[in-house]
Amino acid sequence: MMAFEGVDTGAIDFEDVPWVPYLPYTPDAHVKLVKADPVRGETITFLKVPAGMALPKHHHSGTVIVYTIKGAWRYLEHDWVATPGSVVFETASSAHTAVAVEGHGDEIVTLNITVGELIYLDDKDQVLAIESWRTMVDRYLDYCSAQGIEPRDVTSFAA
Amino acid sequence: MMAFEGVDTGAIDFEDVPWVPYLPYTPDAHVKLVKADPVRGETITFLKVPAGMALPKHHHSGTVIVYTIKGAWRYLEHDWVATPGSVVFETASSAHTAVAVEGHGDEIVTLNITVGELIYLDDKDQVLAIESWRTMVDRYLDYCSAQGIEPRDVTSFAA
Amino acid sequence: MMAFEGVDTGAIDFEDVPWVPYLPYTPDAHVKLVKADPVRGETITFLKVPAGMALPKHHHSGTVIVYTIKGAWRYLEHDWVATPGSVVFETASSAHTAVAVEGHGDEIVTLNITVGELIYLDDKDQVLAIESWRTMVDRYLDYCSAQGIEPRDVTSFAA
Amino acid sequence: MMAFEGVDTGAIDFEDVPWVPYLPYTPDAHVKLVKADPVRGETITFLKVPAGMALPKHHHSGTVIVYTIKGAWRYLEHDWVATPGSVVFETASSAHTAVAVEGHGDEIVTLNITVGELIYLDDKDQVLAIESWRTMVDRYLDYCSAQGIEPRDVTSFAA
Repeated sequence: MMAFEGVDTGAIDFEDVPWVPYLPYTPDAHVKLVKADPVRGETITFLKVPAGMALPKHHHSGTVIVYTIKGAWRYLEHDWVATPGSVVFETASSAHTAVAVEGHGDEIVTLNITVGELIYLDDKDQVLAIESWRTMVDRYLDYCSAQGIEPRDVTSFAA
Repeated sequence: MMAFEGVDTGAIDFEDVPWVPYLPYTPDAHVKLVKADPVRGETITFLKVPAGMALPKHHHSGTVIVYTIKGAWRYLEHDWVATPGSVVFETASSAHTAVAVEGHGDEIVTLNITVGELIYLDDKDQVLAIESWRTMVDRYLDYCSAQGIEPRDVTSFAA
Repeated sequence: MMAFEGVDTGAIDFEDVPWVPYLPYTPDAHVKLVKADPVRGETITFLKVPAGMALPKHHHSGTVIVYTIKGAWRYLEHDWVATPGSVVFETASSAHTAVAVEGHGDEIVTLNITVGELIYLDDKDQVLAIESWRTMVDRYLDYCSAQGIEPRDVTSFAA
Repeated sequence: MMAFEGVDTGAIDFEDVPWVPYLPYTPDAHVKLVKADPVRGETITFLKVPAGMALPKHHHSGTVIVYTIKGAWRYLEHDWVATPGSVVFETASSAHTAVAVEGHGDEIVTLNITVGELIYLDDKDQVLAIESWRTMVDRYLDYCSAQGIEPRDVTSFAA
């Protein structure tokens, strides 16, 4: 059977994949991995972060589209605030530091379409860690294994 | 000044762009065009359709990611139903016919990241119309002109 | 086994895939299909056309990168001539009519990275035919079958 | 004027852009930057390396398509050898170490379509340097400035 056979449009329900702690960074933020393309390096994820949490500055190699579902956040490097219904378009090789904006509830939930990798940076712009489709898949599979959950193949594009 | 200068991450609020009737197809469906990449042919749109409306069968040249915000819908060609929070991943050169699913409120709202074009087909799979980044931009600009709204440059990636 | 296992960098030699007549358009032009991504709709092909042959006007939904290896050609809609070593970047939803330029040998050979589909148009801009990753793969498989050649899985990204 | 106006298919001749020393890595390898997309992070380049030179191991965030024009090379991590006319497809988040293969002339020339970034790694897989559309453009502009050459806007997609 060739690889293209069976490739087709499919749907993933919100409950089909679990919220996974965003380790090793913090157990308080959670990622829900919906799809990961191992050829192109695109991931589709939901991110849930408690209001008030800051994540380290990150640089990303490709584009990121962020649709905010709940809560409000901003980048230290920009003036705008992302609120529910907004779309943030992040261009390739840009860097910024996400912070929550208070007064918009107790958590932030976003949908993220990420092409390529995120590089977390320290105060001196040295590389702390690199996130890719592969680290996202490994984290998901590790979590399923630890919890005794049967994992979906989020890297498959079969219907 | 070179084209890359000024390119940066930016945010578009939900209210920054209007709901535009999805003409010439129907005045009852509405599209909100957030971003259009004139180089790659990617568009980011919201679509709002009354419950019970069917759209013609369409074929698309690239991928489409559909995040359902409100209501429920399905494709005649598939068994799954897309409900709020679900993510549909449509692979390149697939074709399907969207129908609303009753009992989930009076309208359907989706966020769509579309790469390439949609080709609407009749009952004999003949081409009825082609939708692209360009027709999306033209429809938006025509609407702004008719309504006396100052249009945003949704094709710019300046911050 | 999950879909991502085995995905890795690989090489295809020029002789690994055959020149296939570009049917049903013309037996005199030939396509060599190197890779087809059934998820994204990207194809990598070589095209070989006799000097003096014109192809119908085409519109394409995504980007095309054309590297000219041999011969010279141009689009009726543009002033430049593509000669060996040049790179043509075609933006999404543009349309043009390729013609050979005389005095540069008896054939034109190009490498093409095509995202999405090509729509061939007649004199009145009506759709004649649509070329996609799928028609490219079908033509290749049909040719292999007719010639008794064992086909490669050009849609696989295993190493 | 909106950003999409003027976007169109264009051609770049091989002589339109110079060979630029691949600094700070080595003055003996050269890069010819043909196009850089500041939104998506895709670059189109030619690379020219003397036979016998090795480059550090690199990891890349997205896909790379390498068409070999002259000479022969391989990755230490794979068995195949890339010779003229071959196409190498590198999948996202893979890593490898390029080495020249002797007996195929005195230099290697490749055409590279690179999406995202290259991360050069040392023997312990620590990050040595990151190459992106931005470093490629900066190197080109610096070279033009030092040589008194009027630079093209390789980041523009105007015709």
